Amino acid sequence: MGCVQSFRELCDRPKNTNVRISLPAVCIVWETAMIILFGIFIRYDDDSDSHWIDDRKETNKSDMENEFYFRYPSFQDVHVMIFVGFGFLMTFLKRYSFGAVGFNFLIAAFGLQWALLMQGWFGSLGPDGKIKIGVESLINADFCVASCLIAYGAVLGKASAVQLMVMTLFGITLFAVEEHIIIHIIHAKDAGGSMVIHTFGAYYGLSISWMLYRPNLNQSSRLQCSVYQSDVFAMIGTLFLWMFWPSFNSAITDHGDGQHRAVINTYLALASTVLTTVAVSSLFQKHGKLDMVHIQNSTLAGGVAVGTAAEFMLMPYGSLIVGFCCGIISTLGYIYLTPFMEKYLKIQDTCGIHNLHAMPGVIGGIVGAITAAAATESVYGVEGLKETFDFVGDMSPTKQGGYQAAALCVAICFGVGGGILVGCVLRLPIWGDPADDSCFDDEHYWELPQDEESTQPVLQYNNHMRNKDVIETNFNMQQT
Amino acid sequence: MGCVQSFRELCDRPKNTNVRISLPAVCIVWETAMIILFGIFIRYDDDSDSHWIDDRKETNKSDMENEFYFRYPSFQDVHVMIFVGFGFLMTFLKRYSFGAVGFNFLIAAFGLQWALLMQGWFGSLGPDGKIKIGVESLINADFCVASCLIAYGAVLGKASAVQLMVMTLFGITLFAVEEHIIIHIIHAKDAGGSMVIHTFGAYYGLSISWMLYRPNLNQSSRLQCSVYQSDVFAMIGTLFLWMFWPSFNSAITDHGDGQHRAVINTYLALASTVLTTVAVSSLFQKHGKLDMVHIQNSTLAGGVAVGTAAEFMLMPYGSLIVGFCCGIISTLGYIYLTPFMEKYLKIQDTCGIHNLHAMPGVIGGIVGAITAAAATESVYGVEGLKETFDFVGDMSPTKQGGYQAAALCVAICFGVGGGILVGCVLRLPIWGDPADDSCFDDEHYWELPQDEESTQPVLQYNNHMRNKDVIETNFNMQQT
Amino acid sequence: MGCVQSFRELCDRPKNTNVRISLPAVCIVWETAMIILFGIFIRYDDDSDSHWIDDRKETNKSDMENEFYFRYPSFQDVHVMIFVGFGFLMTFLKRYSFGAVGFNFLIAAFGLQWALLMQGWFGSLGPDGKIKIGVESLINADFCVASCLIAYGAVLGKASAVQLMVMTLFGITLFAVEEHIIIHIIHAKDAGGSMVIHTFGAYYGLSISWMLYRPNLNQSSRLQCSVYQSDVFAMIGTLFLWMFWPSFNSAITDHGDGQHRAVINTYLALASTVLTTVAVSSLFQKHGKLDMVHIQNSTLAGGVAVGTAAEFMLMPYGSLIVGFCCGIISTLGYIYLTPFMEKYLKIQDTCGIHNLHAMPGVIGGIVGAITAAAATESVYGVEGLKETFDFVGDMSPTKQGGYQAAALCVAICFGVGGGILVGCVLRLPIWGDPADDSCFDDEHYWELPQDEESTQPVLQYNNHMRNKDVIETNFNMQQT
Repeated sequence: MGCVQSFRELCDRPKNTNVRISLPAVCIVWETAMIILFGIFIRYDDDSDSHWIDDRKETNKSDMENEFYFRYPSFQDVHVMIFVGFGFLMTFLKRYSFGAVGFNFLIAAFGLQWALLMQGWFGSLGPDGKIKIGVESLINADFCVASCLIAYGAVLGKASAVQLMVMTLFGITLFAVEEHIIIHIIHAKDAGGSMVIHTFGAYYGLSISWMLYRPNLNQSSRLQCSVYQSDVFAMIGTLFLWMFWPSFNSAITDHGDGQHRAVINTYLALASTVLTTVAVSSLFQKHGKLDMVHIQNSTLAGGVAVGTAAEFMLMPYGSLIVGFCCGIISTLGYIYLTPFMEKYLKIQDTCGIHNLHAMPGVIGGIVGAITAAAATESVYGVEGLKETFDFVGDMSPTKQGGYQAAALCVAICFGVGGGILVGCVLRLPIWGDPADDSCFDDEHYWELPQDEESTQPVLQYNNHMRNKDVIETNFNMQQT
Repeated sequence: MGCVQSFRELCDRPKNTNVRISLPAVCIVWETAMIILFGIFIRYDDDSDSHWIDDRKETNKSDMENEFYFRYPSFQDVHVMIFVGFGFLMTFLKRYSFGAVGFNFLIAAFGLQWALLMQGWFGSLGPDGKIKIGVESLINADFCVASCLIAYGAVLGKASAVQLMVMTLFGITLFAVEEHIIIHIIHAKDAGGSMVIHTFGAYYGLSISWMLYRPNLNQSSRLQCSVYQSDVFAMIGTLFLWMFWPSFNSAITDHGDGQHRAVINTYLALASTVLTTVAVSSLFQKHGKLDMVHIQNSTLAGGVAVGTAAEFMLMPYGSLIVGFCCGIISTLGYIYLTPFMEKYLKIQDTCGIHNLHAMPGVIGGIVGAITAAAATESVYGVEGLKETFDFVGDMSPTKQGGYQAAALCVAICFGVGGGILVGCVLRLPIWGDPADDSCFDDEHYWELPQDEESTQPVLQYNNHMRNKDVIETNFNMQQT
Repeated sequence: MGCVQSFRELCDRPKNTNVRISLPAVCIVWETAMIILFGIFIRYDDDSDSHWIDDRKETNKSDMENEFYFRYPSFQDVHVMIFVGFGFLMTFLKRYSFGAVGFNFLIAAFGLQWALLMQGWFGSLGPDGKIKIGVESLINADFCVASCLIAYGAVLGKASAVQLMVMTLFGITLFAVEEHIIIHIIHAKDAGGSMVIHTFGAYYGLSISWMLYRPNLNQSSRLQCSVYQSDVFAMIGTLFLWMFWPSFNSAITDHGDGQHRAVINTYLALASTVLTTVAVSSLFQKHGKLDMVHIQNSTLAGGVAVGTAAEFMLMPYGSLIVGFCCGIISTLGYIYLTPFMEKYLKIQDTCGIHNLHAMPGVIGGIVGAITAAAATESVYGVEGLKETFDFVGDMSPTKQGGYQAAALCVAICFGVGGGILVGCVLRLPIWGDPADDSCFDDEHYWELPQDEESTQPVLQYNNHMRNKDVIETNFNMQQT
């Protein structure tokens, strides 16, 4: 820890938020690299190549059996979650809406390209050295990006665009390795990514935030809060995440009953979470008033926690129970844990991703392990059991349960370890991040509209001017 | 009426908006009940159970023929209408956006769980005493919830969350009975729910609003209006309802041509409504200016009115005519009927659901009855006629028309009768509803952001301070 | 030019924005005409007619093979782009959000009806004189409308609703002819409409804007800018356009691999554009700050430019290259070209459609021509080549490339020529358009909420009033 401390001191130099060279350079260089790497490695897969017509005729398939039709509606929903869901969820800060939506847009657009490459190299590199992509690859790329956007939630308002790009580059890389280990080596199942996406992403972000601890962040506290309108904007994000979460958890599950069941489980878990979130939020406030922070975030915890087990025979009441617990735990986390972590653990978590992704993700991993271990042929059917868990050889539900638990540990280790390493890199004083008193402010990275008094002065011109002197005084004061 | 009057006086006690005990209690108790009842009754249906693989192999089906793929895209669209559509449509009030979106979220999430149970008990309880749910059940649950959200529109800003939960519990219960009578006993067709959902929901809400009449509501009139931004937020709701209405009306119609035709009819009816709404709105305002209230609401009337007949051979021009009339009637309703109802009938209808749901719903029922009665084999084809109306035995189009008309009466009776009964319950002075001078104000149920001057003082710090004294004076004044 | 000049002078009369007669008249008359024409011409197509059941049984088809299931998810995404995407993209102006969303809604709803007729007459009029419509017709109608909404972007804030209706009527008419020539006579391919929709629409709008040049528009310059909230609203539009663009470009391509490939190409092109847009935006501003105008608009250029070639074997890296170039060109357009065009060419382009649609559309046409000309059987497969390009007779890739180039010229000619003609009509002083000092202001066409100080005075009542005199003074000042 001494080393970390001295490294911290080394990095504490005066801040300069000018990214006029670094941001364009990073964008252009990385995009050029993408073009070259895509040229070398990436091709259409069988279902999206124009040779598909030969396939289809040979196998006497219907057009409808192109993978496209099984996945495309879910893909679009996931896409909305990534860009509108995550983007608008983070607009709740009063002066950081441009940064929330805009930087989310930037890192997601970059991340998905890098994810196609990384996931391809680890997952689907063909004998000809080419990666074949189709609609499922696009979904997986979006999933991969989701983990980095979760991590962004922890450092929201405290990082520059360049830092976020670096964080995304490493995050996607780590994700691809972690996912490969969990899915292809350990053979754990994680359809909705409770472990792979949420647990990893949240601990990655929290570790980075811990490495980038800002002791004087209270200097920005006047901006680290919401206004009425920004809270309504954030609800756009919340609702699109909430509504499309069933698509998220079912997007890459088995055709037919697998996708169908994942949707039902997620739908129910989310509905249940809303009620317990409201209950706890109301119980812990004076006069029983609700807190928008809880409604915006904790209502989503059920979707996270049901991710791993969504395709299993969790049973409708099981989904409700998972949602019930997560609503309570997540809301209590916002009330007690977030302030505790900031004060004692030196982890500043702007969006409270520990409550929305980390804890529910871990719960999801545990629920998945238990559900897998408890699977029986009487519940699943002989064929159904094999199909659902892709059992080969002498695998059994008990073993699968153990593997699921192992996968959870892998996700946490990658998150924490990766976050600390990347945090070190991000402490270098070259990334253009803001000073402690300039956080949560779009001012430093965006050309803001000049006229900030909204529409008022303009309208005052049009009003009757009964007392011209007073008006002028008032106007001078507002303009000064 | 005397009895109602004395009951009213009994209930007029000082108001206390503290729901710190009642709201958490209701949420936790009801969610616990849901878990127990789901445990006893609810299971996956054949298409979402892991045994489906056996079915599929036996019947030589393709994966694609899982019910999931026929309904899921429509389901997601309906889901968006329920949560974003209805939620944001009601954000138009200047200080009730949290309540609009947040309470909508709460009661929809609770309602859909209770709807799955109620609709299951009445509709699909198997011989083993289990309710089997699949994607169509989820759509039906969302539909059921829609009727309660419509009712919420009438009491928007005047009810507490606890009241809304009670209203939803009873509303869903009544809906399930009414729907059972209309669909399974009378055998009326109502794909888009003009009668079942809209007419019932609207009269249920209006009756409750009549029972909860507030003579001194004008004390809140300063808040019963919109501001510029809140009107733009409401347009998000309007547009998502408008765009996805074709999915709403086609979500549970017959596979193939049934869904296809319902989409076309709804699309056209809605397009037509927009033009007549604009025409009437402009005609009845000074200088021909448009009124946002009409654009936000009346443009949707065509979708409501074409609901029952959407799957029939209404013909494209028929859909246009339905939309044409509804745009005019609904807009005139906002101009003349809403003030009349408030003044003379003592019905305070915050969102004007009488114009958006009640009248168009009744028109939809009538159009459905006429279209059904006029159906002929030459238009539908011999097979097509049977398929479209599910005729069994000696049913004929004329009879079907009569049954459709009967169904409309059932919907109205259930709405009015149920609303009066539930209104009585809601008058009890235990639900934490606001006093007449505190309506339409998020203040009483939500922790509001502290800094209400939005971003102005902060920005003034950054400006040149040419005249420090004046600035300070101004700042003191704003802060005081 | 002399003639144009004298016509301009003729038209410069005092403005009257009262549309109380003209707007209702236009709406009612045109909607009535639609009903009559739909009655005469429009019927359901085979897949949406109730006779489909006979077809299906005869050909032993599955329900799933109804065209509906191939196209409906894409249709809904396109629908969202038209109403929410285009509508909210234009809300960026501080006082024109009602006009942006509301007029967009009006002209789209009218335009799609007229488009069904026009496209039917030119494309699918049967031997019985009837136009058969299905889900693909609805998509095509939405596409047709898109071109007029693009044109609206050029005159945003400077035209009355009546003018926009006239512009849409002629625009749709021209579009249908242009599309017929390009698709059915020249046999060019243009799945995503780079030429047919974007190039035509943009030049149509720019020509109209040139004809309606306002020399004193600077009198409205205080309103021709954004505020913080309006920029966030505009991002809703941007993101829904960006996310659903893959559906736009794939909505009417070939079943199976055609749709699949179009999605992949568009997804990649758009991702690439975001990075180069950010790079150029940051590079050309002081301190490297980003400009919201670029993020809102230029990030979409890649989707436009990949439209024509989306269904070809453009290859993933090819899509990235197209996106890379368009992000740069479009952003540079906003920085240099828009001011240049306004100053020297007298083209006032409110939304910068020249940078977002015209240039990328032309690039898209050129990319399409080159890609078509370079197509080989080794890349596409023998069958695949025929299938992708619908080759009949002695068509060859080289010829196809030439035809594509010809199509681009047709689109430009129709845009410029049509725009000039329609611009002449729109200069007549009878349409109720605003004076130069009243542009960009909802005031003239919308009933605006009374209380424009948002929520502030109300909240001040509730605060502690330590110094009553100061408060009163302040309040008087704000109210005066």
